[in-house]
Amino acid sequence: MTDRLRQFASDNEAGIHPEILAAIGKANTGHAPSYGGDPWTQALETRFCELFGAETRAYPVFNGTAANVLSAAGVLEPHQAIVCAGTSHVNLDECGALERFAGCRVLIIHVEHGKITPESLQQVPAGHGAPHQSQPRVLSITQASELGTVYTPEEVRHLADAAHDRGWLLHMDGARLANAAASLDLPLRAVTCDAGVDLLSFGGTKCGLLAGEVVLVFAEGVAPRMPYTRKQGLQLASKMRFFSAQFLALLEEDLWRRMAQHANAMARRLHDTIRDLPGVAISQPTQSNAVFAHLPAQAIQRLRPEWRMVVWDAAVSEVRMMASWDTTPDDVDDFGAAIQAALTIAP
Amino acid sequence: MTDRLRQFASDNEAGIHPEILAAIGKANTGHAPSYGGDPWTQALETRFCELFGAETRAYPVFNGTAANVLSAAGVLEPHQAIVCAGTSHVNLDECGALERFAGCRVLIIHVEHGKITPESLQQVPAGHGAPHQSQPRVLSITQASELGTVYTPEEVRHLADAAHDRGWLLHMDGARLANAAASLDLPLRAVTCDAGVDLLSFGGTKCGLLAGEVVLVFAEGVAPRMPYTRKQGLQLASKMRFFSAQFLALLEEDLWRRMAQHANAMARRLHDTIRDLPGVAISQPTQSNAVFAHLPAQAIQRLRPEWRMVVWDAAVSEVRMMASWDTTPDDVDDFGAAIQAALTIAP
Amino acid sequence: MTDRLRQFASDNEAGIHPEILAAIGKANTGHAPSYGGDPWTQALETRFCELFGAETRAYPVFNGTAANVLSAAGVLEPHQAIVCAGTSHVNLDECGALERFAGCRVLIIHVEHGKITPESLQQVPAGHGAPHQSQPRVLSITQASELGTVYTPEEVRHLADAAHDRGWLLHMDGARLANAAASLDLPLRAVTCDAGVDLLSFGGTKCGLLAGEVVLVFAEGVAPRMPYTRKQGLQLASKMRFFSAQFLALLEEDLWRRMAQHANAMARRLHDTIRDLPGVAISQPTQSNAVFAHLPAQAIQRLRPEWRMVVWDAAVSEVRMMASWDTTPDDVDDFGAAIQAALTIAP
Amino acid sequence: MTDRLRQFASDNEAGIHPEILAAIGKANTGHAPSYGGDPWTQALETRFCELFGAETRAYPVFNGTAANVLSAAGVLEPHQAIVCAGTSHVNLDECGALERFAGCRVLIIHVEHGKITPESLQQVPAGHGAPHQSQPRVLSITQASELGTVYTPEEVRHLADAAHDRGWLLHMDGARLANAAASLDLPLRAVTCDAGVDLLSFGGTKCGLLAGEVVLVFAEGVAPRMPYTRKQGLQLASKMRFFSAQFLALLEEDLWRRMAQHANAMARRLHDTIRDLPGVAISQPTQSNAVFAHLPAQAIQRLRPEWRMVVWDAAVSEVRMMASWDTTPDDVDDFGAAIQAALTIAP
Repeated sequence: MTDRLRQFASDNEAGIHPEILAAIGKANTGHAPSYGGDPWTQALETRFCELFGAETRAYPVFNGTAANVLSAAGVLEPHQAIVCAGTSHVNLDECGALERFAGCRVLIIHVEHGKITPESLQQVPAGHGAPHQSQPRVLSITQASELGTVYTPEEVRHLADAAHDRGWLLHMDGARLANAAASLDLPLRAVTCDAGVDLLSFGGTKCGLLAGEVVLVFAEGVAPRMPYTRKQGLQLASKMRFFSAQFLALLEEDLWRRMAQHANAMARRLHDTIRDLPGVAISQPTQSNAVFAHLPAQAIQRLRPEWRMVVWDAAVSEVRMMASWDTTPDDVDDFGAAIQAALTIAP
Repeated sequence: MTDRLRQFASDNEAGIHPEILAAIGKANTGHAPSYGGDPWTQALETRFCELFGAETRAYPVFNGTAANVLSAAGVLEPHQAIVCAGTSHVNLDECGALERFAGCRVLIIHVEHGKITPESLQQVPAGHGAPHQSQPRVLSITQASELGTVYTPEEVRHLADAAHDRGWLLHMDGARLANAAASLDLPLRAVTCDAGVDLLSFGGTKCGLLAGEVVLVFAEGVAPRMPYTRKQGLQLASKMRFFSAQFLALLEEDLWRRMAQHANAMARRLHDTIRDLPGVAISQPTQSNAVFAHLPAQAIQRLRPEWRMVVWDAAVSEVRMMASWDTTPDDVDDFGAAIQAALTIAP
Repeated sequence: MTDRLRQFASDNEAGIHPEILAAIGKANTGHAPSYGGDPWTQALETRFCELFGAETRAYPVFNGTAANVLSAAGVLEPHQAIVCAGTSHVNLDECGALERFAGCRVLIIHVEHGKITPESLQQVPAGHGAPHQSQPRVLSITQASELGTVYTPEEVRHLADAAHDRGWLLHMDGARLANAAASLDLPLRAVTCDAGVDLLSFGGTKCGLLAGEVVLVFAEGVAPRMPYTRKQGLQLASKMRFFSAQFLALLEEDLWRRMAQHANAMARRLHDTIRDLPGVAISQPTQSNAVFAHLPAQAIQRLRPEWRMVVWDAAVSEVRMMASWDTTPDDVDDFGAAIQAALTIAP
Repeated sequence: MTDRLRQFASDNEAGIHPEILAAIGKANTGHAPSYGGDPWTQALETRFCELFGAETRAYPVFNGTAANVLSAAGVLEPHQAIVCAGTSHVNLDECGALERFAGCRVLIIHVEHGKITPESLQQVPAGHGAPHQSQPRVLSITQASELGTVYTPEEVRHLADAAHDRGWLLHMDGARLANAAASLDLPLRAVTCDAGVDLLSFGGTKCGLLAGEVVLVFAEGVAPRMPYTRKQGLQLASKMRFFSAQFLALLEEDLWRRMAQHANAMARRLHDTIRDLPGVAISQPTQSNAVFAHLPAQAIQRLRPEWRMVVWDAAVSEVRMMASWDTTPDDVDDFGAAIQAALTIAP
């Protein structure tokens, strides 16, 4: 046992990966032009073009809510709407930021396991051009989803086709894109632009960065106003080099994949450890770095002082347990043992 | 001559102070609660209370535009207005972010040397409660001002009184508060809360941080909605500890003052070097880390490939030359010599 | 048969009641102070205080969407939310106007027959003060509901108590308040302020006006910013006397009740006429001036060239048929006969 | 002397012209499709195409602030700005409605006599595409101006060229377009679309309507989102026929011109009456239905109980006196006599 805090509440409670931190230090050499005029940002733009295609435009921003809100605000007019899963971060955890900043509506689809299907799109009224209703214009999916599930490239493609058929754009909230791509053992582009995604919130914070996400726009003309949207969205960093340098390190020798594979493996290890414990019922497929399970309320209670996790749905006593890039096998085993103990004393 | 980029365009082109970078590294120890629940943020809140009074509430945010916009949006209703100098960052450099995010108007006062006076407030229509006009509610001043000048505590107090008499709040854009306080050789609170300031954008980025500013609210009840305003403003950092740790380091043994004194001294050195050069006319009092001067357009042209500065007002060939925490005496002397050379060849 | 258009699509397709039109003409006497400084508006304010209590503040506006949006925007901060039925006008027919104008979220409750119950409020997450989520602050109910049903005073009171217990306000969309009060045979205040309603969209357009609704605020201090909100909401009429004069006429000798009773009676007549026709199934209780029923799709098709109605839910072939203040018994009987004919030829 | 209120404060205090009121009554025939699907609105659209060209799109709205705000909001993105005279209604009298509704900035030009010149456009920073600044996109001029002056077609054309050269659109606030066209003795299109105007707020309220303005867009593709903008802007009238019918009457046999000529003549008569009185100094050219003059403060004071006018600039004791369509020669003569009397007793 160590002294350091160990928890499975969220991967955003982990720190900075040493290679990322080193990259910040290396970029700290004298002066550099501000607001993205620096060599690191230029190198990052080039790198993203290599990874996602030559038309890719990259806009580093500070956090995940910002990446999602700017992705939408950069392409939506105020009378248009974004369509997303009821379980999505866009719907549940952004405090109406999109409504306030862009004036748009968020239209919700009821889904299973956090994933939208082409069929489920029929839940959204079509718009039809009547001025009485907001017109859907962006479909947003989360990869890996908020419930730890992963879309296959085929599933993304079907959604992209369904969206494009309706004249919509497809946005992907990729706060945990690394975990999804690692889970699928595919390159980043295979589940994003190659599968029809138009805009991507490329996540960094949950993958070992100090802070930072990137809005990626994959085709010219999709979001020409984005430079202004980013500035108005309070997301134009003056010392942008330190954000770009982090992403360069993240993309270097697929550091993102190494981190994500590890986190996924730790979630799998936890899943395997608790799956068959009496009183535990895995509630969502474990496909990335999250394990969802029903646990007895009393067991959750007992675990709390020492082990934190998120009570996802109190009504059905479902918890989320999340592994991070720095979760160790010992952490998992200790947590597994603690869960077993908490279950045992339960009446 | 060294290889590293040397410039006098802006203090936001300088890097991270080594003590700040070290503090980030030190805070990188395992997991920590996110969104400000971490010990560093708690320590920072305590530290700010010690420095500015027990009721002080501190909201770390990512950048300076955000600090200003949230300060205003946290207290203004959409039919209200912020009053500021025409030369202010709030007016000139925020791309309508406040208008978009808060729905408010920005009302402008024409000033000299970047400083608002109580008399100049008469330029703003009173409001009088008629629903046809936005009602002024916040007066915003910049300390040190965008033109490098500094308000004395008495001047701030007179503005605070004038604002409060009108039922307004006083906001200070303190992106360069450190430079002002160092210039006046006063504690931070002497030119802020003790002089009647209600809300402060406390600057970090231009004072050696990777990124980070803090919205400080000095009295309870002034801005109860600020936690939501920050979230909606896309400024709630998940790994907030790394921002808070930077500020703790900045406040440690007055690192901010050491950096600011140095930058101010370098500006003074530059001022003294060029003041009497034929063709140069200092255009604004040099009171912090900026030197403003009229230079012949041809001289500016000649300096450009090697030495960058900001052409502040092309119509009158006025430039801004800004020293940073890491500007060296050699940088200044080399720059001074280059200016002299550029002037000499001028016809 | 007459030549004039007869339809059952909406009561907003009817014209101006002769007494209302006469009142406009009577108010057309020379000049009058604009923006509400006129004697008619002052008389209207007095009249509303008599009807709803001395603290009542009245804000005439142009249309129903405006009345709803301003009611909410006058009391909500951008991080707060309005809670309403999924079937409500606020949710379905305002094109995101509230989101755009006030920055707020609309949170939806799934209901039966258009009416919210205290129990159904549990569908809405509590808010709990976390800055990640919009905080519910206004509960909005529609009286008579969009499905033609009516809340009893007791039902309104229970919802008011439930809202107030949560620290919320209760708003009533009274676009068809007249029809509800007439249906209940109660004074207007019995189902509004006396039952705990805090803000009311008092409908006029659907009750024989040329145009006009009034935002009523029943207690001082609830919405002090409303005069500005109305102006910013583009709803401050310069020649307000002509809107106020219409409302004075509407309230004169309960003209509203006479109109509403008639419209309700026509709906009842239609209901009784078609209820037992084979192929017709009344789908919502007929409690005001709307009749909802399932009709065979082919019958709807056949009726269309001559008789318009609203296909409310195509999936279940449910239509809305709405009577107006000027619907005649002959209109109803002709329409009923047409329905019968359309059903008969159906295979 | 009559009993009716006589005043020269504003033309929006006058009532409804009898021909307009009659048109409302004539349109009150049974039911009509709502939201603009009625025959009157269709006829109005045709009429506007005849008057302004076949591509003209017409959007009736409720008031002048709405017409201006929707004209701008229909074409501006939130990072763009509208450029207007400091003396304009858009700047002075709309309570930040545009900022709130569209997120845009209002950039001000200092002008003489209320009229923008091509040279004065240089007061507005160019934008240059830097994301730090709002980008000007619409130039708005007022015809007749708020100071009663009138742009010639050549002046409008020069501004249109200057705007279009910059990639901007030209908007005209035509709240008093009738007065301008009558003053110039030109058809409406000569000073609008034929002179390069792209969008027009076509005024009705000040020209004898109960209420109503129309947003006119002169070319396809300029404002495709306008139907949604109008709805979100709370300006989609359900009983639109009664607004369209008013405009049809206004355009019938140039009723607008007859009214405007009369009002202009009454202003001219007042101008001629007071011009040479000792103590009176006409301060703006009298070109439409407004007379601006410096009057001694004491004289204004004395006139007040009986004769209202607007103190335009108290600092220089300048008043606005405005004639309406129903101002009579006797009104003018009585007012002129009252002014003379008020001046005489002045010490």
